[in-house]
Amino acid sequence: MPPTGRTRPTGTAGLRDSVLGGDLSFLLARANALTLAAANAALSQHGLKARSYSILALAADGVRPTQRELADFLRLDPSQVVALVDELEERQLVERRTDPADRRANVLVATDAGRALFARARQSAHAVELGLLAAVTPKDHERLAELLRLLAFPS
Amino acid sequence: MPPTGRTRPTGTAGLRDSVLGGDLSFLLARANALTLAAANAALSQHGLKARSYSILALAADGVRPTQRELADFLRLDPSQVVALVDELEERQLVERRTDPADRRANVLVATDAGRALFARARQSAHAVELGLLAAVTPKDHERLAELLRLLAFPS
Repeated sequence: MPPTGRTRPTGTAGLRDSVLGGDLSFLLARANALTLAAANAALSQHGLKARSYSILALAADGVRPTQRELADFLRLDPSQVVALVDELEERQLVERRTDPADRRANVLVATDAGRALFARARQSAHAVELGLLAAVTPKDHERLAELLRLLAFPS
Repeated sequence: MPPTGRTRPTGTAGLRDSVLGGDLSFLLARANALTLAAANAALSQHGLKARSYSILALAADGVRPTQRELADFLRLDPSQVVALVDELEERQLVERRTDPADRRANVLVATDAGRALFARARQSAHAVELGLLAAVTPKDHERLAELLRLLAFPS
């Protein structure tokens, strides 16, 4: 049992000093949760969430991803990707096209409307990111991205 | 439309060079997804997942959190916290106790068995973290934690 005389900290301030406050997995999870909530809120004005925004971004960028590649890259279930692509296709923002290099596979491309919406949504997403990074210098922002890339794409 | 003659990249390598590859929200989400999957796999031998591990950690650390504080700190729905605490309590790893400072609230404390399990689980979690950070120097590990803390606990 912990010492019963210990005063319980007010709010979550005491929890930050706990054993979990130095845990990288926890810090990643909490930073991601806050960032995701802010991104979803900002993207909602475009009828998007972080997941559909990511798919639209890759379709708009012209990298012609297959749905399997989208699932691998975005760490989503293939069934989630199908549902998200269906939704974007119904809104005529993306199209599934047969891959000329492999006629068994479909690749995803954005329509003109999809690329226009992505351009607007990207501005909202960037504004959110700048807000979240208000306490981080541009140099540290780049350093953070580099370090996260090592975790996100282990070799 | 993107240029139709553009060759689709093989696998997800081409997607990394896309507009999304420099997006901090995306890097955070993907780093978190990989870290969470690795943590859940390592913690399963202790009958835990990252979420129940976090709750057990805070109970074992003696900070005597309320369930509301746990929900705020871990960014979970209060109903999720109740279910996770129920599960840990059934396994006699934690106990809900009346807070002497506020008799309307319950605080969470770990049992002896709970603290023993946490000590073992923590070793597994640390081993996973070291594996994930193999490409990161100890100095950069600390820098990453500092930068994530700015995002995880905006002032």
